[in-house]
Amino acid sequence: MLKILDNIIFLKKNFLKIKNKVKIIIKDIKKYGENALIFYIKKIDGIYLKNIKKIIINNNILKKTYNKINIYKKTILKEIYIRLKRYHHHNFINSWQINKKDIIYGQKINSIEKICIYVPGGNTIYPSSIFMNCSPSLIYKPKTIFMISPIKNGLISNLILSISYLNNIKKIIFSGGVHTLSCVVFGTKNIIKADKITGPGNYFVTKAKKIFFGNIGIDMLAGPSELIIICDSKIHPYIISLDFFSQLEHDIYASCIVICNNKKYLNLLYKYIYKLLKIQKNKKIIFKSLNNSFLLFKTIINTIEIINFFSPEHLMICIKNSNKILKYIKNCGAIFLNYKSSESYGDYMIGPSHVIPTNKTSKFFSSLNINDFCKKIGIIKIINNNYSKNISSYISKIEHFFSHLYSSIIRK
Amino acid sequence: MLKILDNIIFLKKNFLKIKNKVKIIIKDIKKYGENALIFYIKKIDGIYLKNIKKIIINNNILKKTYNKINIYKKTILKEIYIRLKRYHHHNFINSWQINKKDIIYGQKINSIEKICIYVPGGNTIYPSSIFMNCSPSLIYKPKTIFMISPIKNGLISNLILSISYLNNIKKIIFSGGVHTLSCVVFGTKNIIKADKITGPGNYFVTKAKKIFFGNIGIDMLAGPSELIIICDSKIHPYIISLDFFSQLEHDIYASCIVICNNKKYLNLLYKYIYKLLKIQKNKKIIFKSLNNSFLLFKTIINTIEIINFFSPEHLMICIKNSNKILKYIKNCGAIFLNYKSSESYGDYMIGPSHVIPTNKTSKFFSSLNINDFCKKIGIIKIINNNYSKNISSYISKIEHFFSHLYSSIIRK
Repeated sequence: MLKILDNIIFLKKNFLKIKNKVKIIIKDIKKYGENALIFYIKKIDGIYLKNIKKIIINNNILKKTYNKINIYKKTILKEIYIRLKRYHHHNFINSWQINKKDIIYGQKINSIEKICIYVPGGNTIYPSSIFMNCSPSLIYKPKTIFMISPIKNGLISNLILSISYLNNIKKIIFSGGVHTLSCVVFGTKNIIKADKITGPGNYFVTKAKKIFFGNIGIDMLAGPSELIIICDSKIHPYIISLDFFSQLEHDIYASCIVICNNKKYLNLLYKYIYKLLKIQKNKKIIFKSLNNSFLLFKTIINTIEIINFFSPEHLMICIKNSNKILKYIKNCGAIFLNYKSSESYGDYMIGPSHVIPTNKTSKFFSSLNINDFCKKIGIIKIINNNYSKNISSYISKIEHFFSHLYSSIIRK
Repeated sequence: MLKILDNIIFLKKNFLKIKNKVKIIIKDIKKYGENALIFYIKKIDGIYLKNIKKIIINNNILKKTYNKINIYKKTILKEIYIRLKRYHHHNFINSWQINKKDIIYGQKINSIEKICIYVPGGNTIYPSSIFMNCSPSLIYKPKTIFMISPIKNGLISNLILSISYLNNIKKIIFSGGVHTLSCVVFGTKNIIKADKITGPGNYFVTKAKKIFFGNIGIDMLAGPSELIIICDSKIHPYIISLDFFSQLEHDIYASCIVICNNKKYLNLLYKYIYKLLKIQKNKKIIFKSLNNSFLLFKTIINTIEIINFFSPEHLMICIKNSNKILKYIKNCGAIFLNYKSSESYGDYMIGPSHVIPTNKTSKFFSSLNINDFCKKIGIIKIINNNYSKNISSYISKIEHFFSHLYSSIIRK
């Protein structure tokens, strides 16, 4: 049941106690490798697999498939590819080096070598998730990027394979969940050990990612999707209702808060939501995620505080002069300005990755970007150490690191 | 006992099973706040504290102390400050925005607002750790940065306070460990909740950081310090011995591998190490960390493979034409080139942070840098949505997100 409120409420999210289950799967995969994988594919996904190779698709197949798709599809896919890549290229910085008389110093930027992207699936497919995971990787170019995904057999399409090829994916393993993720962490006979995993999964996968953090690189711990919409009464409630639904149809855990400084408008919106809900194709899901959502009556000034507190994944600012608010937003994943910027566009093709921090973590995480795919290595080359050794000696004495002191001063 | 080997060995690190202890402390702090902190300061640190405020030093005291130190100290500290800040500034990119006819898109870069740095301490002080944690934060400037550190009362010096002031630290809490860290995560009466924690601690602190990852931002999970030295026979073994000791004196878990393509040289180095060990002031520590170290006889080509496998925190390349090897190094934290570049200089004042990934994690982590102190927020503003809605509709249909579809096409 949707509510109209004068004050924010704290939504209690139903996180399942799943840690032990996850740990057992990880342990089994670590010990028994692909035998355990086959076991869990049977147990969890209900598929009997004789050979792991049956769910692995290699680059040559991806290439062949891509070459065969029609020109209309190819044009759309290339357009998305180019747009996203261009966006991420704006963050590019190269390795650099400064040559001074007494010292050369700099930074070497290496790509992370082996990337695995996790693309959710199951009863539907998410081509956009392949784009949005891969596009920031295209700048520093990992040596290899491969994909794991629980997309079911009947849903594997030429489109999925083609998008993967376009985005430089070398291999797809059509299996997801903690069992497949664990193979990627430990490495098995047919699945190489990755250096980093990106992309959101379900609760189980997220829990596993947290356990693996440090053994392997992890992009972020993404939870259910969130949207805050700030609107004034100038935008038709019909439009806001659809934005509201498009957020809630993600899954039953998704949430949306609409904030407006006009109570009449909120009442009208409320009516529209219930009226239009009936004709939404995903109404079953939306009806459940309504429980995580509310409409809020607040002045714009108070709104800013709420946004910075909630640090939402997505923020739509559907008011006149939306730019004015922008500078006050400290914590948020992605921001959509003015009446025309539907959040849906951002999900698919504008530029920033739709892999965005949720659950207040945009206070410290960024949406997936090129820094997730490289590492920065400091470079130091001393030409004349007179100066360096004076300062180093001073500090090393204070720190009681006397071998540091001697190794600093011994060099001529 | 140090060994000279023809093949690499895998050092088994003694990670203690400490997770349960850590969890109990976290639980207590979460439940009882500063009362539990006082309890653990008594239990773990052996200090009876009546009032938390006694271990908190505020900005005005820091400022006063800094103003009082002599000009000689001030000059050295400022020199380090400027050098480090200048290094990190090379990575600066600003918020950006692209204005096209149909769309404005860009990226807003916000500093992470509340940063807590963890500076190790105990029986000695590490002024360099304050510099090296703070310097990358100076570019995007967090709203507040404060420090927690287990430096003992008698060791708190004007130097520590002055360096903190110079590096923009607003408050110091002279208490460390999991108990203090937990206060920073949950927020207590006198300790604000941070958005992110940086800096290495002991095993317990690192375990806690892993547990907190996702609730709060974590820079990396740093383990014991590591150094690989590649040398030829042109550098005196006396010098390499001192570099070796300066690595091993960090703590009993530190490790160093020296690789050379000349077995005679390694034998000579071996003798030097045992001869000079006796006169090292920290010989007790070094004697223990010798167990984590070895000398390795390998050709240069084979060396590269070993480095990329071990992905060491520090790498010294003490050979002629050290630059030639550089391009083959994929995984490493920081690299020191040529005979003159003692790793010790990098610890103190050259530029890159000495907070560097260890234990093979430089495959995916970078040393502490300005990206650890900011977050990137995507900005989207649609002016004309004809184009966007075509592509969005195409993908949203495939994904069965029909409310996405309607919200895309409804806008004129």
